[in-house]
Amino acid sequence: LQKNVLLFPMTPNSSYQAISFAYGKARILDQRELPLKEKYLELSHPREVIAAIKSLAIRGAPLLGLAGLTALHLAAVQSNEKNEFHAYVKDIIHARPTAVQLSLIVRAQYDRCCNFSLKEQASLYYEAALDYEKQMLHESEAIAIHGQTLLKQHSKLLTHCNTGPLAMGGWGTALGIIIYGALMLRRNYEVFYTETRPLQQGLRLTSFELHKHQIPATCIVDSAAAYLMSKGMIDAVITGADRIAQNGDTANKIGTYSLALASHAHSIPFYIAAPWSTFDPASISGETFTIEYRDAIEVLRPYSLEQEKARNNSKVLNPAFDITPGKLITAFITERGVDRPPFHF
Amino acid sequence: LQKNVLLFPMTPNSSYQAISFAYGKARILDQRELPLKEKYLELSHPREVIAAIKSLAIRGAPLLGLAGLTALHLAAVQSNEKNEFHAYVKDIIHARPTAVQLSLIVRAQYDRCCNFSLKEQASLYYEAALDYEKQMLHESEAIAIHGQTLLKQHSKLLTHCNTGPLAMGGWGTALGIIIYGALMLRRNYEVFYTETRPLQQGLRLTSFELHKHQIPATCIVDSAAAYLMSKGMIDAVITGADRIAQNGDTANKIGTYSLALASHAHSIPFYIAAPWSTFDPASISGETFTIEYRDAIEVLRPYSLEQEKARNNSKVLNPAFDITPGKLITAFITERGVDRPPFHF
Repeated sequence: LQKNVLLFPMTPNSSYQAISFAYGKARILDQRELPLKEKYLELSHPREVIAAIKSLAIRGAPLLGLAGLTALHLAAVQSNEKNEFHAYVKDIIHARPTAVQLSLIVRAQYDRCCNFSLKEQASLYYEAALDYEKQMLHESEAIAIHGQTLLKQHSKLLTHCNTGPLAMGGWGTALGIIIYGALMLRRNYEVFYTETRPLQQGLRLTSFELHKHQIPATCIVDSAAAYLMSKGMIDAVITGADRIAQNGDTANKIGTYSLALASHAHSIPFYIAAPWSTFDPASISGETFTIEYRDAIEVLRPYSLEQEKARNNSKVLNPAFDITPGKLITAFITERGVDRPPFHF
Repeated sequence: LQKNVLLFPMTPNSSYQAISFAYGKARILDQRELPLKEKYLELSHPREVIAAIKSLAIRGAPLLGLAGLTALHLAAVQSNEKNEFHAYVKDIIHARPTAVQLSLIVRAQYDRCCNFSLKEQASLYYEAALDYEKQMLHESEAIAIHGQTLLKQHSKLLTHCNTGPLAMGGWGTALGIIIYGALMLRRNYEVFYTETRPLQQGLRLTSFELHKHQIPATCIVDSAAAYLMSKGMIDAVITGADRIAQNGDTANKIGTYSLALASHAHSIPFYIAAPWSTFDPASISGETFTIEYRDAIEVLRPYSLEQEKARNNSKVLNPAFDITPGKLITAFITERGVDRPPFHF
């Protein structure tokens, strides 16, 4: 693979950054406003970061690890006493229940540091956030490189939701593989991406990132994927993950399971790209995963604000994630390479 | 089954009607405006009816047969000479390429009557439309009754798109079975329906019809269906059809194929409800079906009108239908009963 790499490697487009931080401060690109506005939120209070996480101003499982550490840092900076701090910690850990990094990484850092003074903890969490950010950059590049081995020049790829630099610092995960291949190996992948209802992370965020990297691509509604597969238009499907169990069962954006079933029916490889931090050693299978249900308004609002008037007609069930059985997943692409269960934790 | 039928049978809610007509006039409920506005279009020119068909102001494969005959009647009324009339006939037949009734029924009536004078043809098509309307009412009731034999009190049902009285005069097809069971047999079906992107016929039209008939129901995004199935929340899936081949291959609203694949993976019965007029004796399989691709704006617009500004970022592929292989369909519910291929034409 190395010999195909350009002599002067490019980096992902740095004209936008999902999150950056300094001591006592965080700056978050408000992903709710994309692609129409690139608006940055300047935050200094943990409550603001928690609200940004809950409202999906910042999202993407690996990036939520960093957002969580930033919130933890700000909580230690802003709290006057440990009880106040503990309440913030609890809120951070429970802000998004399915994404594994947020709770596991925040909890691990808290367990490591909680006996220090709040001032000392503030510094420790700041360093942990810096470390995590660096680690993410390395991991995403390794994932992007390993991913190329499964693909070819002109591969016809389908991805779901958003998994670029807006979801994981550096290149991203699944979309990172696509962007890296296009930029670094000059591969002309034929890229399809799903709209990703209800919040349209595909149509809004993946389209934004592909456009920023000048990669041509085609959007389809989520339910059109199987039809494209039946017409031979898709060679492989790659998505990210929010939590992966020991047996490979994977929680990811609602609709992932449908794509995996359709891939299986058409003998199309279905890949999950995720850093090793997404693997949950405490879960034997996906059965114990908590699936986050979100507000009905996410389904009702996007059609038109007027649509809300018709809301009483419709009870809505809005699971944000589903669980794809490990046996439907051809391979997992992590920073360690291409892997399959049983995993070595 | 008969003994369970109420002594004083109800009819479907008649406070709204998708299409009605008199000699030289048609009245169409503009389904693009539902559920927010119940606006009726008063039309007297074939061009207006053709535009209503193309823009989906009126839709639903069986109902398009009636809309087509109405347009044919108005074309004969309004044309000054046969060449003008023939141009309209061609436009009517090609207005929606996948729905079978529109082209087959209009063409059959035209072939039967085209040697008469335009004035005579106008009368003949008017009578044909009246006959077709009556026939639809009988067929939809027969479909609704036969459908009950496959379901039980408290069955948990999932349907897709809209297939109620807005899609076929009388009760409808798939949704007609649900409405009929709830009203006539007092069955408390647990009803789930998909939003149905891009045009949200589920969230807009099925919610409207269920609300009009006071049937509680729950909306999900299209891609959440497989997850609900994996959680044991769905006992059966019922959809309509736009065209059915000899081997059971079925063209229907985009997303139907995904639902059939997911049903199959979970051993959940998958039923198609459609009048016999939906079966295309000329098609051995679905391979020869023409699939209508519609404008990208249908995918881009619903999010917000501002979203259109971001349109340049996104090439969109918008197939309106997909093809579900006959082997994934547990049974077909027609006015003749419950059937499976090979069909007797």
